[in-house]
Amino acid sequence: MGISSKEFAELQRRLESGAKAGTPAAKRALPGTEVPVVRMVLGIDPSLRGTGWGVVEVVGGRPMGLAAGTVRCPASWARSRCLLRIHEELRDVLGLHRAEVCAVEGLFHARNLRTAIIMGEARGAAMAAAAISGLAVYEVAPSKVKLAVAGHGGARKIAVARMVQRMLGLSELPEPDAADALAIALTYIQEAGRLSLNAPKRV
Amino acid sequence: MGISSKEFAELQRRLESGAKAGTPAAKRALPGTEVPVVRMVLGIDPSLRGTGWGVVEVVGGRPMGLAAGTVRCPASWARSRCLLRIHEELRDVLGLHRAEVCAVEGLFHARNLRTAIIMGEARGAAMAAAAISGLAVYEVAPSKVKLAVAGHGGARKIAVARMVQRMLGLSELPEPDAADALAIALTYIQEAGRLSLNAPKRV
Repeated sequence: MGISSKEFAELQRRLESGAKAGTPAAKRALPGTEVPVVRMVLGIDPSLRGTGWGVVEVVGGRPMGLAAGTVRCPASWARSRCLLRIHEELRDVLGLHRAEVCAVEGLFHARNLRTAIIMGEARGAAMAAAAISGLAVYEVAPSKVKLAVAGHGGARKIAVARMVQRMLGLSELPEPDAADALAIALTYIQEAGRLSLNAPKRV
Repeated sequence: MGISSKEFAELQRRLESGAKAGTPAAKRALPGTEVPVVRMVLGIDPSLRGTGWGVVEVVGGRPMGLAAGTVRCPASWARSRCLLRIHEELRDVLGLHRAEVCAVEGLFHARNLRTAIIMGEARGAAMAAAAISGLAVYEVAPSKVKLAVAGHGGARKIAVARMVQRMLGLSELPEPDAADALAIALTYIQEAGRLSLNAPKRV
């Protein structure tokens, strides 16, 4: 799925209008929907076997990718071992990068209750790590994440990764899970400066 | 729901036959189903607003309640704040009581995907706390928990609490969530010494 230069310019404009910290978010937001404009965001895309994470910093109104990666847990590992690894790796990341906000995707569909509970477990281990490090945790709508980085809600994984690479000036295409996490962080930054009915929600 | 003395004696007998550590579990279990017989078990019944926990120690073949409680999180708290509290309180409990195994209920039904994910988040925060403290985490079947403490699978909460109180010689009726957690720990102890097709499963 290609993205034209025109589309890219439009998306870049939208992103920057969101990322600029000139007007305090609280002044523009509806009461009860204030979403803080911050300098550094950790995006997380939690899953038991491959949790993506990415740290995005806003420098002079522009988002920059600081670090990203994937917490990989082999299928042979017990679930609790994966949860431990997810929790500890994210704590290590936050020891290195002092993010102020953690962004995750809002609750969404799972194939069935069993996969929903297992996905929830990965989320819980990850969110507890962020909370211990003092970060406020926000959910962004999954449709907004894809819209923010690829212009429409049905973007494929590879399109998200390419867009994230361009937006953050990364020399290499990020891994799919890390790209998703970076996209979540970018979406938070974009949405934090805007008036929106579907703004990031503190959870 | 009352429990007769005869029922109690039968359940006590079943419990003790399970709790005795005379024969190493590995010698009696099917290959791949070894469940360690241990001295101290932390049972957890995770939920976002009221996570029950209970520590049971086996002394001379008999289970004794060491400590139990409920991690309460008001409805006004953000989810991530609850997850932090659950994680930290359980780590404090494990700092005081050196349990070797953590037992939780096996994956079960939830009303819908949203509640399943939220319940999973509480489980993940709790299981990560146990894993950080070096405990192996086991799931016991929910039907076994009720069967173990009240003789049939449809036992009501109050019946579970009463039976747990009698089995552990507690002077007061435990709170419902704490009683459930103690029942989960008791079930692990009972099942660990037995040959069972539905034995506790390491997760």
